[in-house]
Amino acid sequence: MGIHQYFKSLSDLEKLYRCPGKFKFEDHSVASHSFKVTKIAQFMGTVEEKHGSQVNWKSLYEKALNHDYPELFTGDIKTPVKYASDELHDLFSQVEDQMTKKFIYREFPKEYQEIYLERFREGKDDTLEGMILAVSDKVDLLYESFGEIQKGNPEPLFQEIYEESLKTILQFKDLACVQYFLNDVLPDMLNEKFIEHSDLSFITESIVDGNKGS
Amino acid sequence: MGIHQYFKSLSDLEKLYRCPGKFKFEDHSVASHSFKVTKIAQFMGTVEEKHGSQVNWKSLYEKALNHDYPELFTGDIKTPVKYASDELHDLFSQVEDQMTKKFIYREFPKEYQEIYLERFREGKDDTLEGMILAVSDKVDLLYESFGEIQKGNPEPLFQEIYEESLKTILQFKDLACVQYFLNDVLPDMLNEKFIEHSDLSFITESIVDGNKGS
Amino acid sequence: MGIHQYFKSLSDLEKLYRCPGKFKFEDHSVASHSFKVTKIAQFMGTVEEKHGSQVNWKSLYEKALNHDYPELFTGDIKTPVKYASDELHDLFSQVEDQMTKKFIYREFPKEYQEIYLERFREGKDDTLEGMILAVSDKVDLLYESFGEIQKGNPEPLFQEIYEESLKTILQFKDLACVQYFLNDVLPDMLNEKFIEHSDLSFITESIVDGNKGS
Amino acid sequence: MGIHQYFKSLSDLEKLYRCPGKFKFEDHSVASHSFKVTKIAQFMGTVEEKHGSQVNWKSLYEKALNHDYPELFTGDIKTPVKYASDELHDLFSQVEDQMTKKFIYREFPKEYQEIYLERFREGKDDTLEGMILAVSDKVDLLYESFGEIQKGNPEPLFQEIYEESLKTILQFKDLACVQYFLNDVLPDMLNEKFIEHSDLSFITESIVDGNKGS
Amino acid sequence: MGIHQYFKSLSDLEKLYRCPGKFKFEDHSVASHSFKVTKIAQFMGTVEEKHGSQVNWKSLYEKALNHDYPELFTGDIKTPVKYASDELHDLFSQVEDQMTKKFIYREFPKEYQEIYLERFREGKDDTLEGMILAVSDKVDLLYESFGEIQKGNPEPLFQEIYEESLKTILQFKDLACVQYFLNDVLPDMLNEKFIEHSDLSFITESIVDGNKGS
Amino acid sequence: MGIHQYFKSLSDLEKLYRCPGKFKFEDHSVASHSFKVTKIAQFMGTVEEKHGSQVNWKSLYEKALNHDYPELFTGDIKTPVKYASDELHDLFSQVEDQMTKKFIYREFPKEYQEIYLERFREGKDDTLEGMILAVSDKVDLLYESFGEIQKGNPEPLFQEIYEESLKTILQFKDLACVQYFLNDVLPDMLNEKFIEHSDLSFITESIVDGNKGS
Repeated sequence: MGIHQYFKSLSDLEKLYRCPGKFKFEDHSVASHSFKVTKIAQFMGTVEEKHGSQVNWKSLYEKALNHDYPELFTGDIKTPVKYASDELHDLFSQVEDQMTKKFIYREFPKEYQEIYLERFREGKDDTLEGMILAVSDKVDLLYESFGEIQKGNPEPLFQEIYEESLKTILQFKDLACVQYFLNDVLPDMLNEKFIEHSDLSFITESIVDGNKGS
Repeated sequence: MGIHQYFKSLSDLEKLYRCPGKFKFEDHSVASHSFKVTKIAQFMGTVEEKHGSQVNWKSLYEKALNHDYPELFTGDIKTPVKYASDELHDLFSQVEDQMTKKFIYREFPKEYQEIYLERFREGKDDTLEGMILAVSDKVDLLYESFGEIQKGNPEPLFQEIYEESLKTILQFKDLACVQYFLNDVLPDMLNEKFIEHSDLSFITESIVDGNKGS
Repeated sequence: MGIHQYFKSLSDLEKLYRCPGKFKFEDHSVASHSFKVTKIAQFMGTVEEKHGSQVNWKSLYEKALNHDYPELFTGDIKTPVKYASDELHDLFSQVEDQMTKKFIYREFPKEYQEIYLERFREGKDDTLEGMILAVSDKVDLLYESFGEIQKGNPEPLFQEIYEESLKTILQFKDLACVQYFLNDVLPDMLNEKFIEHSDLSFITESIVDGNKGS
Repeated sequence: MGIHQYFKSLSDLEKLYRCPGKFKFEDHSVASHSFKVTKIAQFMGTVEEKHGSQVNWKSLYEKALNHDYPELFTGDIKTPVKYASDELHDLFSQVEDQMTKKFIYREFPKEYQEIYLERFREGKDDTLEGMILAVSDKVDLLYESFGEIQKGNPEPLFQEIYEESLKTILQFKDLACVQYFLNDVLPDMLNEKFIEHSDLSFITESIVDGNKGS
Repeated sequence: MGIHQYFKSLSDLEKLYRCPGKFKFEDHSVASHSFKVTKIAQFMGTVEEKHGSQVNWKSLYEKALNHDYPELFTGDIKTPVKYASDELHDLFSQVEDQMTKKFIYREFPKEYQEIYLERFREGKDDTLEGMILAVSDKVDLLYESFGEIQKGNPEPLFQEIYEESLKTILQFKDLACVQYFLNDVLPDMLNEKFIEHSDLSFITESIVDGNKGS
Repeated sequence: MGIHQYFKSLSDLEKLYRCPGKFKFEDHSVASHSFKVTKIAQFMGTVEEKHGSQVNWKSLYEKALNHDYPELFTGDIKTPVKYASDELHDLFSQVEDQMTKKFIYREFPKEYQEIYLERFREGKDDTLEGMILAVSDKVDLLYESFGEIQKGNPEPLFQEIYEESLKTILQFKDLACVQYFLNDVLPDMLNEKFIEHSDLSFITESIVDGNKGS
């Protein structure tokens, strides 16, 4: 029993990869993803505050940091949508839930159990903080799938993920931070220029020729 | 729909790692594991035949080759025993089962569905072939955990796996191939000598000194 | 001496990569490849049976499982065709052959040596099973090279491999399973749609706009 | 200019490894480390609260999340102590500082610049939150070096890191959370049992013999 | 103290990656890069000799082999140009310089210190050998960036690197070896044909149809 | 045809790993190994010079840089000694030789063919430079095997390699540089202290207790 087991489990999250076997260009661990989601949530919360909302920062950080901790027990399972179902998804949630509770009762000292039961509870409720988490989680997923598509991963799964993420974000379009994302971030992401192999000859010629005159 | 999806799924099994995040020295994909189990089963079947048993080779190969295919849909989940339970284990089997069926009905032409429903069924029954599979699966797991322990992985999970594998193998100790394994293979595995850092000075001196005389 | 050395060698095949240094997107170990070839051969044999041929399953599985085992001793050498020659290829086969024999005589108990000399013999003979192996080996190679080309690997080696594989498959075009592959699998492989970076703006707009109305 | 560059930079932190070339068993990215430090700080703050201190959670989370962000610009440089010096260390801090500022002025909209200049400032000040960060940063480093030593990494650098981390933690021994760590976590970490190769024969015999009677 | 530390440091250079986190397709260690630069310099020197120049081979090899050794102490930092500055660059050079000296005085026997101080000095001076080094270093960088662009890495950093490398090479366009590179090597690099996914259907059809007639 | 093919081949050497599948802790590419051997040869040559020998530096560098280039065509094959033979070894050398020649005649311009035929010839002759190469090649191999043994790789292959390397070095014990290696480098390598898991409790206690008094 002990917090040592909990601290050690953090390092297991570093080695747990999302969508195992699917990302070809950049793997993402559950630990890294949680970090990125929390950083995105931090920015999103800041935008909300600028627009007059009151953010419960303690709650927002707790939700974002811990939202995927239960994957410690089951891994990250991303079955192609066509073979999955809501029923199966519920089965999994149930499994994760029970294992998380077992873990807390076994490893945490009594006086901290309630706090951590609360922290590891599903955070995507309908508070402002729950909604910011739901959005931030999908923003990171959008970036992850964009990264693969942009580098040429032909796996249709990533288009599915991209579309699903964007649709979820749009469900929260009344939030100021979602408006900010749609208007100020997404266009820059899509406008990313990138060099083609075929441009290289042109670039090379320009440089070599431009240099001749000098 | 199509066999193309099935062929493509084989390559997904190459990228699905067993006990994700736990092996520190040698990762094992589900594809590689299935190969090794089939090769071990081939030897075990040969021993059985030498001792007078009749082996249904077609059945043995089918069982061994396909025994972990359903992990395609859920990954390989190896939750430390202390947080798991039989009930949870059953939940997972159910999930895998349903997804496998969905996959077959969706991707296989009608005339091959029955055959593959049969092939992807749990193979560890009480036929001779089912028992050889159960043994071979654990022999490979024993080797995998031995490989980690021997190289210094301190994770207690591997001792658990080692013990559990050996105990399962012993449940079939009436099989000639299990006797062969216990008497002729296991001792060699355990006797593997290995050099210690501290031996190097001695070895070096012997070589350098032995050479002086020459 | 001992079967332990043989079992241990299976794990070496997990770490032996095909065309070392050439695959940029997905590495393939000899163990994984052998697994995939055996699974493909299983399907191909099933098609043959459906079309009235008699398949010797024991032989087919033995051939497929063991066909690359001798690479244990020499690695997988895929020299660009232009620098190689038949003569060199023969030299290599000879080396592999001799080493395989040495291994069997050294590690296998006497009563199993004949069986394994037979199993590790070149399996691509002109029996139905030998032909199914030749086809299945190339089908997997076709998929491996397709996977690289599709993800954007510009190395011309993969076009060479793709073409050579397809040509070899076509040499067996009288087999029912090759007809099945050409008519029902290959077109699906080639028709794989994949998203381009440039499609993302369009998809994004559709989703965002479609959502506005709601 | 844009927040898109900032979001993209988060993914760069996933690929930036700590002490490049030194960890042999488990690599740690700057993103993963930041996640673990924040999770540890969360627990440490909770202990402080239980002991009557008042924790500014917003500040604690900001400090922990962002404390290594500037490594984006310089990488994580861990020169063996014997070749480094305070002067060199200061030079680096200066470089990181300037680049961080350039980045904020270039990429952040004006109304968020002040907030992020503050967030990316050195967080280890003498507030309670600054001290918890200093401790949590070293607790994770202690775990990282312990992980390597325990698995057999002979590099003396890790002993240096272990000792230096522990000494830094002890500078804050008046904190309740440091007392908790020293009394309730550290002993469990050090007591981690681990199986030796030489134990395997004994374990195996016990299992095999124990089974004979049955 | 000792040359053992120096020999051991060579292996650290194997694990030090260039532009950490940026290359997606092929990582390049400082050791590998140094090897390639030395090999390129060997060819460039040979061209110079063919054209009548006198090459001091001892000096050329020393410069090429050692030119990145000081990165041992700081890693390879490739900050996107827009956030860097000459001043920062000078700061880094200073740091590397001081650490290299400390290392030599600490680890090398007195009689070899002068020789290695000289060998680890910045080699890109205006001797013929210094110029060949400057060119060869950039030729390898050009190839490294070309490799990424050609495989589809969309990171604009690689276009920056490609352009900057080519411009530096052109500064030495009066050298015979640069003329050779521009006229005989660069065009072949740019002309590399590569197969597109969309070509595969055509190739496949040609082969399948061509075969029908046979 | 072209030098571009030659430059490109250098990058293939970066991806060609030595003893594929055997090193568990640190992989070594042919490119990295060639770099280290050349650096070691540089030091060894320097020692020889200090002791009055005349070193042909141009020749030494050429031999060291190029000594493993032909592995480009066959990979690095390190078959366990017990299954190999001199005859097989000769077969391989022959294959490498012929492919290297084919490559030079195909890719190099006529005026450089003679030079490169010479450069890619076996360099370990009985000149001083040939002997320094033979020694330096084995010194690096000694370090590579030491690195694995020291970290706990139990594979007996590494003891074989260690012993064989040392024995080869001793064949050149009349060289001043070998004397230097035996007297001044090897003892430091063997004396490398390293921390054991069991030392950690002691170290920790010392630090914690030492701190109590303060």
